[in-house]
Amino acid sequence: MSSEFGSILRVSVFGQSHGRAIGVVVDGLPAGEAVDREELQRFLDRRRPGGSPLSTARKETDIPEFLSGLEGGKTCGAPLCAVIRNADQHSGDYGELADKPRPGHADFTAWAKWGGHADMRGGGHFSGRLTAPLCVAGGIAKQILARRGIFVGAHLAAVAGICDRPFPLHPSRELFDEIASRPFPVLDEEAGERMRAAILEAKNDLDSVGGIIECAAAGLPPGLGEPMFGGIENRLAAALFGIPAVKGLEFGEGFRAAALRGSENNDPFAVENGRVRAESNRAGGILGGITTGMPLVLRAAVKPTPSIGRAQRTVCLSAMEPAELTIHGRHDPCVAHRAVPVVEAVTAAVLLDLLLEGNHGTF
Amino acid sequence: MSSEFGSILRVSVFGQSHGRAIGVVVDGLPAGEAVDREELQRFLDRRRPGGSPLSTARKETDIPEFLSGLEGGKTCGAPLCAVIRNADQHSGDYGELADKPRPGHADFTAWAKWGGHADMRGGGHFSGRLTAPLCVAGGIAKQILARRGIFVGAHLAAVAGICDRPFPLHPSRELFDEIASRPFPVLDEEAGERMRAAILEAKNDLDSVGGIIECAAAGLPPGLGEPMFGGIENRLAAALFGIPAVKGLEFGEGFRAAALRGSENNDPFAVENGRVRAESNRAGGILGGITTGMPLVLRAAVKPTPSIGRAQRTVCLSAMEPAELTIHGRHDPCVAHRAVPVVEAVTAAVLLDLLLEGNHGTF
Amino acid sequence: MSSEFGSILRVSVFGQSHGRAIGVVVDGLPAGEAVDREELQRFLDRRRPGGSPLSTARKETDIPEFLSGLEGGKTCGAPLCAVIRNADQHSGDYGELADKPRPGHADFTAWAKWGGHADMRGGGHFSGRLTAPLCVAGGIAKQILARRGIFVGAHLAAVAGICDRPFPLHPSRELFDEIASRPFPVLDEEAGERMRAAILEAKNDLDSVGGIIECAAAGLPPGLGEPMFGGIENRLAAALFGIPAVKGLEFGEGFRAAALRGSENNDPFAVENGRVRAESNRAGGILGGITTGMPLVLRAAVKPTPSIGRAQRTVCLSAMEPAELTIHGRHDPCVAHRAVPVVEAVTAAVLLDLLLEGNHGTF
Amino acid sequence: MSSEFGSILRVSVFGQSHGRAIGVVVDGLPAGEAVDREELQRFLDRRRPGGSPLSTARKETDIPEFLSGLEGGKTCGAPLCAVIRNADQHSGDYGELADKPRPGHADFTAWAKWGGHADMRGGGHFSGRLTAPLCVAGGIAKQILARRGIFVGAHLAAVAGICDRPFPLHPSRELFDEIASRPFPVLDEEAGERMRAAILEAKNDLDSVGGIIECAAAGLPPGLGEPMFGGIENRLAAALFGIPAVKGLEFGEGFRAAALRGSENNDPFAVENGRVRAESNRAGGILGGITTGMPLVLRAAVKPTPSIGRAQRTVCLSAMEPAELTIHGRHDPCVAHRAVPVVEAVTAAVLLDLLLEGNHGTF
Repeated sequence: MSSEFGSILRVSVFGQSHGRAIGVVVDGLPAGEAVDREELQRFLDRRRPGGSPLSTARKETDIPEFLSGLEGGKTCGAPLCAVIRNADQHSGDYGELADKPRPGHADFTAWAKWGGHADMRGGGHFSGRLTAPLCVAGGIAKQILARRGIFVGAHLAAVAGICDRPFPLHPSRELFDEIASRPFPVLDEEAGERMRAAILEAKNDLDSVGGIIECAAAGLPPGLGEPMFGGIENRLAAALFGIPAVKGLEFGEGFRAAALRGSENNDPFAVENGRVRAESNRAGGILGGITTGMPLVLRAAVKPTPSIGRAQRTVCLSAMEPAELTIHGRHDPCVAHRAVPVVEAVTAAVLLDLLLEGNHGTF
Repeated sequence: MSSEFGSILRVSVFGQSHGRAIGVVVDGLPAGEAVDREELQRFLDRRRPGGSPLSTARKETDIPEFLSGLEGGKTCGAPLCAVIRNADQHSGDYGELADKPRPGHADFTAWAKWGGHADMRGGGHFSGRLTAPLCVAGGIAKQILARRGIFVGAHLAAVAGICDRPFPLHPSRELFDEIASRPFPVLDEEAGERMRAAILEAKNDLDSVGGIIECAAAGLPPGLGEPMFGGIENRLAAALFGIPAVKGLEFGEGFRAAALRGSENNDPFAVENGRVRAESNRAGGILGGITTGMPLVLRAAVKPTPSIGRAQRTVCLSAMEPAELTIHGRHDPCVAHRAVPVVEAVTAAVLLDLLLEGNHGTF
Repeated sequence: MSSEFGSILRVSVFGQSHGRAIGVVVDGLPAGEAVDREELQRFLDRRRPGGSPLSTARKETDIPEFLSGLEGGKTCGAPLCAVIRNADQHSGDYGELADKPRPGHADFTAWAKWGGHADMRGGGHFSGRLTAPLCVAGGIAKQILARRGIFVGAHLAAVAGICDRPFPLHPSRELFDEIASRPFPVLDEEAGERMRAAILEAKNDLDSVGGIIECAAAGLPPGLGEPMFGGIENRLAAALFGIPAVKGLEFGEGFRAAALRGSENNDPFAVENGRVRAESNRAGGILGGITTGMPLVLRAAVKPTPSIGRAQRTVCLSAMEPAELTIHGRHDPCVAHRAVPVVEAVTAAVLLDLLLEGNHGTF
Repeated sequence: MSSEFGSILRVSVFGQSHGRAIGVVVDGLPAGEAVDREELQRFLDRRRPGGSPLSTARKETDIPEFLSGLEGGKTCGAPLCAVIRNADQHSGDYGELADKPRPGHADFTAWAKWGGHADMRGGGHFSGRLTAPLCVAGGIAKQILARRGIFVGAHLAAVAGICDRPFPLHPSRELFDEIASRPFPVLDEEAGERMRAAILEAKNDLDSVGGIIECAAAGLPPGLGEPMFGGIENRLAAALFGIPAVKGLEFGEGFRAAALRGSENNDPFAVENGRVRAESNRAGGILGGITTGMPLVLRAAVKPTPSIGRAQRTVCLSAMEPAELTIHGRHDPCVAHRAVPVVEAVTAAVLLDLLLEGNHGTF
């Protein structure tokens, strides 16, 4: 029950950063859905590092092989399995870490849990690398949703305290496509420049920065989700906190709503083309856990990459005594920008799962 | 799958605000656990309104009747069912609302979902009143955890932008008890005074305010939780977003971490009495979804009560035309302070569920 | 996870035989479905003992009180909770049993599991009495299914080795209704006479007999169910083995198929009114876990009631030494005939759950 | 939710008979468990056809590649993924079948469900070939259980109506090993000879036969399993009906119990070495869904292979008219003997899952 999420649509991720391969099994996909491999690859490439000085120098080609679930380029009802072989493994870089847990990483908790049996090279199963198979699953979900007029997109809302513009009231497919085509996923390119500078500055300081990702889904019908624990917030949260480094999640105004008055935070209802619309969207498209038909809007907080080049205080587990650790190897001074498509992927997979449940209250 | 959460320990909530009764079935409780009814009632009373001008004037006695699951005051292995009869129902207050959805409420989404079949008097199954049975389940979980040295407590971290002190690095049972005994659940009573003033001011303005609840759990072993989607954050989030009005959730530094550098956000490890401890706790006691053994710390954002006395713009669903709505009846100008024990309750139930899974990686 | 089943439709049973009440929470019912209380009561009465010398002399009125989930006689989207108070409790009859587990009962396993904390008066939560709330849930599911042209019925296929006729190839609603209206639920009334005689003979011998229940569902669409572990057989089995005393389950020819040849067991396909039909139904309406559109047919084996009046060898748990036990009190010499509506109820609830999942492969 | 089972231990099977590969992801394995690859291969070989005239002439090497989850030959806490490449694909044999569903196969139901999108070459995801990855998962579970003194074994209880001896009251590890080492998995080799003759006779008749598999688990503690729907029977049934061709399942006396009297079917309790034992085991080691500590015994009915060489009546789906079908290619005249290790595998995986839940009622 650890590396899976979903109810009708089950996404099960496997692999360790430096093992033979990483991959995903997606069970419950509707049959007959075309998978556009080129579009999927472009989506995966948004997550991939390489080239840019903003990311790790590791090369990850991230081309999935589909072992099952596709027939003639379409889903065939059987579980889909996609595998990505691990090629560029510098396991030598991680020798010291087995005994000296990196602050801010899962090294220590994996040791506490599994008593040293864990394969923690490069973070093992906790590695951000596991988000590649997540993007395979979510990229396919995005294609299926788009065919029904539901579009999921995200941008980098903040890095190191520097903020992008928020999404407009009605983010469109075109806007999502435009962000996706940019080398740096922001709405306000000037803010993006300052974010990039902050990332490079952190890199030069042998340090790292975090960020916030804002994700939206347009085209959802009203009435999706269930009361209380079956709410769309609950289900998205249960999946989104599985993305490594995510430490906070909010819907609509979220934490800011806590400082507003009801008269400011309530979205007035209006009639538009014979349908109920909200005049504003502080609820993020969700009331009582159920979609209003307005765009779903969420924000995920990504902590600064814990792998930094500076010396840090840790312990030597074998001797149980204080130690100093300097992490070598190639690391990302920021992962928030690379996590933008990952948040989209997980959001899309959860929404498709909900839509597959059918009926939504009446029958 | 809507009004339940948990894996081994299943908490299933039922009832509508103005129906015959509300209640909870708790399946999977360990057998032989004493339930201290007086202690439980004191816990429930922390959630209850009444008396104070800060809350609704509705009277809710909230004394549960146990229909099953207890034998001689102890759990007997069978599912526990507790029922609270609804007494003080002024259904008349809600007549107009069936056709004019209240902004910020689930009235509209329930209508979109169930086409008018919903019992939405007083919010129906979406009502904050449903948190009373949640507190029965969580209150029992708290007693069971306390017997194993695990203590869960919370305070009101902010109201209307006014902040309480955060929990100290190692919040203790005594501190939790002290907050619980106070009429207003804060650490800094002076801040509490200002919060109360802000609530009363909102009330006088026929408006409402929101707040933030900080919850901590002390005494958890390291190694609890699973990687990725089985993480302790995922499971807490899946449940906590089921509390009405919660719109944001963060662990440790959460959203603030997004503006920190890695060197600031990483908690250095140290050796203390032969065990690994972190020198700070920005991770909120969780790395890679697994407990570190440091206190678990989370913060939940509660939006301002959507029921306010001011006129609001809405629509008349039957005529599908704009309408104005002025909500009468008795409402809370703030629910954040009443939600403090609810956050404790849900947190405790999730933690007990995780502990019941046993083994935690080795076998 | 013990006393619940279902995915979208969750049925959660609570209560002990001699506790205050027994009941059920049904979460996930579609909204706007009328519940015909009189029809439901007639269904519950089929399970009820009383009057007949074939059953226990205990009086159980079994009239449910609905605490939630209904509004104006229709489901309202919120979880439905129904409670049946326990009235006729002769707890005194069970005193000796706490220390001397009854052979064939769960007394010993409950003790092994819960170390004496269990409330085992009358079987506690393991009692056949818990099938009353199951019938409330399933009776409502039957009404909802019938509105869509899906009918579930059952008969007593065997008692004490005496066999009823099997269902015809296409059992109809009328046939189901006819069986339901009979005092003894068989197709062949002459066989029914001999079954009754066998039950009375066992009663006179202070003994008991078992039986087999055959259940069918007509009107199911083809294509319902998922491959492998999501098959309709898997899901029905996961629920049906929860009925006390069920020790075997088969679909279509079941165990008899193991002695047939492929040429005998394969159902040839034919075209009928432009649709594919099978000429026979040895598959019981299921191939590969998925419905064929032919009637679903299953058979459940019910063991002889373990409570018998004869002296039996057991152990005294406190002294851990051999003991003899003679069970007094009022017991059923056979429960198979009373279990007929229970098998219908559980089957109907599982089928409704599957239908609520929607989509069924395409989208 | 279709091709997975388990709660803490999740087994997720993927692949189609004639796709690139088949495989399994096993999530939730305890860490630090050695996987003896040679022992596992011997287990897989018991399922493999080849050589014998009793099975298909297809060659399946069935050597799994482990992509993740193992580190130094031991489980590392991360999900384990094993892949078996499909080599010997004669897809040409299956051309005609796309339009003429084979009686007794899932061809028609897959078409009804997925509208022709399914990859049904060789049965696709419904193929018996998918039991190979199941055996990888179950074979590992067997090794882990054996290390704790829990042993799972099975034999062919019947073929074509010819019966093997049943297991003795206390089947031992040695007995399980002995059966496993035999070319034909029976206790009574003389009965085995007659079974083999019956299989060959069916083969010569271009027909097939079915059989019954009896499986036992020795060494289970008492108290494992939950009441009602969390019972060990429910959980085993939910998984075992996922094995292709299984159409019936019974525990202990099962269907035979329906013809016994209570005085015959109740197992008397006795004291043996200071512990409670049953003198007989008609309950199959389970009372009230919970283990008694006696051997768990179950029997699964396997229908005759639907693929037979004789001409059969079917329909032409494109023309929707009657058709005749003669299946060519290489098929098993019986799969029951090959399913013996599969039943062991699934049983072992379910039992390990239950054991991993921990606590079992007390805490």
